[in-house]
Amino acid sequence: MFLTRTEYDRGVNTFSPEGRLFQVEYAIEAIKLGSTAIGLKTKEGVVLAVEKRITSPLLEPSSVEKIMEIDDHIGCAMSGLIADARTLVEHARVETQNHRFSYGEPMTIESSTQAICDLALRFGEGDEETMSRPFGVSLLIAGHDENGPSLYYTDPSGTFWQCNAKAIGSGSEGADSSLQEQYNKELTLAEAETIALSILKQVMEERVTPNNVDIAKVAPAYHLYTPAEVEAVISRL
Amino acid sequence: MFLTRTEYDRGVNTFSPEGRLFQVEYAIEAIKLGSTAIGLKTKEGVVLAVEKRITSPLLEPSSVEKIMEIDDHIGCAMSGLIADARTLVEHARVETQNHRFSYGEPMTIESSTQAICDLALRFGEGDEETMSRPFGVSLLIAGHDENGPSLYYTDPSGTFWQCNAKAIGSGSEGADSSLQEQYNKELTLAEAETIALSILKQVMEERVTPNNVDIAKVAPAYHLYTPAEVEAVISRL
Amino acid sequence: MFLTRTEYDRGVNTFSPEGRLFQVEYAIEAIKLGSTAIGLKTKEGVVLAVEKRITSPLLEPSSVEKIMEIDDHIGCAMSGLIADARTLVEHARVETQNHRFSYGEPMTIESSTQAICDLALRFGEGDEETMSRPFGVSLLIAGHDENGPSLYYTDPSGTFWQCNAKAIGSGSEGADSSLQEQYNKELTLAEAETIALSILKQVMEERVTPNNVDIAKVAPAYHLYTPAEVEAVISRL
Amino acid sequence: MFLTRTEYDRGVNTFSPEGRLFQVEYAIEAIKLGSTAIGLKTKEGVVLAVEKRITSPLLEPSSVEKIMEIDDHIGCAMSGLIADARTLVEHARVETQNHRFSYGEPMTIESSTQAICDLALRFGEGDEETMSRPFGVSLLIAGHDENGPSLYYTDPSGTFWQCNAKAIGSGSEGADSSLQEQYNKELTLAEAETIALSILKQVMEERVTPNNVDIAKVAPAYHLYTPAEVEAVISRL
Amino acid sequence: MFLTRTEYDRGVNTFSPEGRLFQVEYAIEAIKLGSTAIGLKTKEGVVLAVEKRITSPLLEPSSVEKIMEIDDHIGCAMSGLIADARTLVEHARVETQNHRFSYGEPMTIESSTQAICDLALRFGEGDEETMSRPFGVSLLIAGHDENGPSLYYTDPSGTFWQCNAKAIGSGSEGADSSLQEQYNKELTLAEAETIALSILKQVMEERVTPNNVDIAKVAPAYHLYTPAEVEAVISRL
Amino acid sequence: MFLTRTEYDRGVNTFSPEGRLFQVEYAIEAIKLGSTAIGLKTKEGVVLAVEKRITSPLLEPSSVEKIMEIDDHIGCAMSGLIADARTLVEHARVETQNHRFSYGEPMTIESSTQAICDLALRFGEGDEETMSRPFGVSLLIAGHDENGPSLYYTDPSGTFWQCNAKAIGSGSEGADSSLQEQYNKELTLAEAETIALSILKQVMEERVTPNNVDIAKVAPAYHLYTPAEVEAVISRL
Amino acid sequence: MFLTRTEYDRGVNTFSPEGRLFQVEYAIEAIKLGSTAIGLKTKEGVVLAVEKRITSPLLEPSSVEKIMEIDDHIGCAMSGLIADARTLVEHARVETQNHRFSYGEPMTIESSTQAICDLALRFGEGDEETMSRPFGVSLLIAGHDENGPSLYYTDPSGTFWQCNAKAIGSGSEGADSSLQEQYNKELTLAEAETIALSILKQVMEERVTPNNVDIAKVAPAYHLYTPAEVEAVISRL
Repeated sequence: MFLTRTEYDRGVNTFSPEGRLFQVEYAIEAIKLGSTAIGLKTKEGVVLAVEKRITSPLLEPSSVEKIMEIDDHIGCAMSGLIADARTLVEHARVETQNHRFSYGEPMTIESSTQAICDLALRFGEGDEETMSRPFGVSLLIAGHDENGPSLYYTDPSGTFWQCNAKAIGSGSEGADSSLQEQYNKELTLAEAETIALSILKQVMEERVTPNNVDIAKVAPAYHLYTPAEVEAVISRL
Repeated sequence: MFLTRTEYDRGVNTFSPEGRLFQVEYAIEAIKLGSTAIGLKTKEGVVLAVEKRITSPLLEPSSVEKIMEIDDHIGCAMSGLIADARTLVEHARVETQNHRFSYGEPMTIESSTQAICDLALRFGEGDEETMSRPFGVSLLIAGHDENGPSLYYTDPSGTFWQCNAKAIGSGSEGADSSLQEQYNKELTLAEAETIALSILKQVMEERVTPNNVDIAKVAPAYHLYTPAEVEAVISRL
Repeated sequence: MFLTRTEYDRGVNTFSPEGRLFQVEYAIEAIKLGSTAIGLKTKEGVVLAVEKRITSPLLEPSSVEKIMEIDDHIGCAMSGLIADARTLVEHARVETQNHRFSYGEPMTIESSTQAICDLALRFGEGDEETMSRPFGVSLLIAGHDENGPSLYYTDPSGTFWQCNAKAIGSGSEGADSSLQEQYNKELTLAEAETIALSILKQVMEERVTPNNVDIAKVAPAYHLYTPAEVEAVISRL
Repeated sequence: MFLTRTEYDRGVNTFSPEGRLFQVEYAIEAIKLGSTAIGLKTKEGVVLAVEKRITSPLLEPSSVEKIMEIDDHIGCAMSGLIADARTLVEHARVETQNHRFSYGEPMTIESSTQAICDLALRFGEGDEETMSRPFGVSLLIAGHDENGPSLYYTDPSGTFWQCNAKAIGSGSEGADSSLQEQYNKELTLAEAETIALSILKQVMEERVTPNNVDIAKVAPAYHLYTPAEVEAVISRL
Repeated sequence: MFLTRTEYDRGVNTFSPEGRLFQVEYAIEAIKLGSTAIGLKTKEGVVLAVEKRITSPLLEPSSVEKIMEIDDHIGCAMSGLIADARTLVEHARVETQNHRFSYGEPMTIESSTQAICDLALRFGEGDEETMSRPFGVSLLIAGHDENGPSLYYTDPSGTFWQCNAKAIGSGSEGADSSLQEQYNKELTLAEAETIALSILKQVMEERVTPNNVDIAKVAPAYHLYTPAEVEAVISRL
Repeated sequence: MFLTRTEYDRGVNTFSPEGRLFQVEYAIEAIKLGSTAIGLKTKEGVVLAVEKRITSPLLEPSSVEKIMEIDDHIGCAMSGLIADARTLVEHARVETQNHRFSYGEPMTIESSTQAICDLALRFGEGDEETMSRPFGVSLLIAGHDENGPSLYYTDPSGTFWQCNAKAIGSGSEGADSSLQEQYNKELTLAEAETIALSILKQVMEERVTPNNVDIAKVAPAYHLYTPAEVEAVISRL
Repeated sequence: MFLTRTEYDRGVNTFSPEGRLFQVEYAIEAIKLGSTAIGLKTKEGVVLAVEKRITSPLLEPSSVEKIMEIDDHIGCAMSGLIADARTLVEHARVETQNHRFSYGEPMTIESSTQAICDLALRFGEGDEETMSRPFGVSLLIAGHDENGPSLYYTDPSGTFWQCNAKAIGSGSEGADSSLQEQYNKELTLAEAETIALSILKQVMEERVTPNNVDIAKVAPAYHLYTPAEVEAVISRL
């Protein structure tokens, strides 16, 4: 019956007869259109690397932010709708600052991730803070807390998983296969940097330069690599 | 008349001509897509066992939480949308803590289950705490109170039943048959562990390991098994 | 014109061209899918008897509650959506307790019934306490007040009637005929118990046991029969 | 154009191209499905008589209330959805009591009728007290105030008229003709009783008994006839 | 394209491609179905005359009110939905009384008319006082203030005009032509009465009697003619 | 695809695939149905002239107000839905009075125009002051402030422009051409009066009289011409 | 399936099956209908230049504002719906003034741009400040803060980028190509003025005059060029 699918997802948050939530699935499609981002957890800390699509030579590469700091000890890489990601990141920044203020200690990475997913889950409910549709973005959240380094992956349904390594965005399928082949728990941070960038290089259709990739680490503090630091990693490939 | 079904469930909470609520039925379909979970009540306490779908070797198995603690004396296993389950569990945690604070005693298992179902029933009503669609999740709630051990099963319609043993999720049909054959009221907790895991083994398509199953008991306190404890049960099969 | 019916009941609470309210009629269909319940009024008190559908031998029969206490002097049997019934019963419990607190006397059975129907009538109006659809449940409300014993029957439209005897649910048609043949105002409570159970036996497709029926009386206080008391009635058949 | 009618009345309160309000017209259809009620005004007071449809011998006839008291000096008969009528009557009871409390005198019959019609007119507006659809009921409001006896007739559009005699419900067409033939302003109350019941007898398909009709008068106080008083009127036919 | 018209007026207050507001135009149709009303302004005061449709000899003619007092110095005649007109009149009564209370002087006729049109314009906006559809009524507002006598005509769009003479309702077309022929500014009030009634007589299909017409004047105070006064005007025809 | 247009403008304020807002475009059509209005700016002040459609000789010409005062130093002419224009003018009157009260000086013409356009832009947003559809009216706003005389033109999209001369309404196309030919910045106020009226004469289908046109000037105060003053301008043609 | 697209964008803010937000894409189409605007960043400051469409010689060119000041150190050029742009600019003016008041220093250009995009992102959510549809406008935001000169480009999705040079509006495609050819980081402000205007000249279909273009610079303060200053740039072409 060809009308079925179109009928059921007019309401942004209703089940189809097969028990599916189409708007969430379509939001996941939005991420498959996004640029690729990769995260790897090592004992020394977590590495994030992203592809930046510079559509015009007149664009300022540093203004295409696909890796953002949430707190001193947490950063995230994103793929999908950047404006949506900013809202989630802004929410997480407020939550982590409130936590520091109330309890005098940094928020754990899991609690920060849960706070982001709580907001993502409640779309279509008309509250002030929620969106009227799912957030069209996936995040790789890297952090370091009392449990050591950790890497979380969130999707538009408000679900999250802890990972050792993960890729998101248009090149995620190939990148995930490469990660499974190359990842092991004994990697050094430097080896993780090299793996992340070499995989990113495979999925990008152009030469890797400090202009079209960003790298960051949380080890144990968040640090976004300078162009020179990125150049250094590139030269190791 | 081929339009009938599609016409009636646009409103998330309306009856069809046959007196059915399609959105609730579709949410139940979402659970049939979920991983299998099993609960068994014995005189010594209640055992919960779940299959964990680890889609990638890079996923941290412990972050795929399908059994959660509600209070010292209550735990639950879930099948369906995990983000939805978290909302219900969080609600139950607040209710049970409020009860302890107000009355100086733990909440009964039935009252805790009723609190979860009250929230589940009220979808589509635009209140702050409710969802705009049914919660796409079933829970097996295991607990121990002044009436001894008990096991409850909830579905998306907000209905609940007390059971001696129950399976939910994609493998529930076969698992329920096995439970009826093997269950009796005189089982020890150890025997219940073995039965739960052997049935889970049948419905899973891969080898059972501490990575892809979780076991918990409430006897009389909630305890999630360590990988070593899970390994011990596996070795008894 | 084949579209007529589907057009008019999209709004949950609108009239069709013939002056009908389809959502209410569909909710009444939901009751015809429910288990059978029977009530009989005698001079000594009111008897309620219900069929319990125990879909699995692992279900705890006592957790399938189809007869509930509202106040010391009021009980009710239900057919249809059990979660909906719980909401109505909870509302009635609050109303009757408020009445006792405010006036120092029990609420009359008619006022309690009216309170339930007021809530049932106001569906689709977006208030906090109302549902967004009709309540899909019928109740047999048994009570004893200054006017002696009484039995009320409510339907999803918020209408109620006082009856001497009444059956609801999937077997109600046959059961109502049998009641008309066997009922007279001089019945003793014991005779009413026997009639209720013998009629229930006819409409159920399996053997009657203390596990699959419940009996309660209000004479003048509400009392739910123990399995032994049910067994005693069964043995009289 | 065959779609016209179905298109325009989806919104409960919108005009059709011919300037009609279909939902109000459909609500009027609901009344044509209802039982017949008759009112007659005499110099001595007003008489109301209604048919009661007793669908089962096990129904308590006195619980099928189709004539209700609004205040000491006002009563009303109804045809259509009884639960809707109860809401209007309850509203009128509060208004008349408030009037007595504020002004120390009974409310006039016209003001009471206007209060009912104000509520009826405002359907579909989402206020707390209003309905989301027209009230599917017509009332015959009988009263006695400083202007002597009076009889008002209201319909679902919120319009009202003062009448000497009026019939509503499924038999209203024939009954109205008979009233025009038999009514004159010099009737005694006893003659009005006889006329009302004889006309009701014509439109009912069964024998008239104290069980299936109700009679009330406001002369000058509201009084619902006992079965014996009804029997006395029947015997005069 | 035959769907055009039906598509655009589902929303009660949206423009069609030609810049038309269909719901307002349909409400104007409702007035064309109404009884005829006529107003004439003279130097001595304003005369209003209306046809009353007495559908049954048992209706009390005086309860069919189509001319109403707004304040001592303002009255109005209406055609269309009477219940809607009552809401507008009630609103105007409150506004004029508030004005007297706040400023110690009567409200001007233009301000009173503007107050009515402000309410009429704001339909479909969900405020407490507004309707969810246009008011289906036209008014002829007659008054006398510091500027002398005046006559205003309002329509469902919330627009108003000042007139020397005007007819509304089903017979308005013919009546307006007759008014243009017979009206001049030097008419006496008595001549205006005669003209109004003679024109009403032409458009009514039955004999004019004190039962089926009402006459009122504002000269300078509002006065509704008694049956004897109406009879006197009839006898002058 | 013939459904395209009808699909997209059901929501009053949504873009079509070509980036158009149909409801705003349809509201602009409503203005093309309106009477013609003309404004001319001179060094001495601004002249406004409008056609008044007097549909019946019994209408009071002075009650057809198409030029209104906003403040001592601002007036406006309108074309389209007069009731909508009144709401905008009333809003502007409140804003200009508030400005005088708060700052002790008259509001500038640009700020007054912006205040009107802010209200016009926000249709369909459900606030108390906004409309549920675009305002179907264009205004020519004439004023005089510290920058000297100025003339603004507003349309239903909430956009405004400053002009030397402008025509709106059904005859605007021809009138605008004539204005371009005849306008120059050195015109005297008297010449502007003559040009405005001679152009109006061309687009009107009947003889120009003080009854069917209105003229006003802001030079520097707002003044609506008396019939004698209008007659004087006519005689100069 | 030809219905697909029309089905999914009825809700203003929902994903299509491919993960697209059609209303945002249609709003971007609105900008392609707009006049062309160009921005260039130099070390000395930023230049903005816009085409002004003067549809009639009687329009006051200075009232067609397509470049506006946000704060002393920020200006913006716009293409698309001007009334929408005014709302965004007004919002930014309030935010930058609040910042100065709260922190005693000017807001950074990035924070100002973020404030505009936050508002743009939240359309369709029913808050007081948000629109019910996307803002149909793109902005080029030029500013100068502690980081020196900067140029930002925003689109209706609420996303922003920092650029060295950028064109928006109907001629943006050709203009962007020309900018890439002619732009280098060592340009002087005067050279940037010449490039901007020469590119604008190519995309406009008429002769460039001080009447149909506007130029502004932020170097380091916002300054809108006088007609003489514009004439001087034109003469350099």
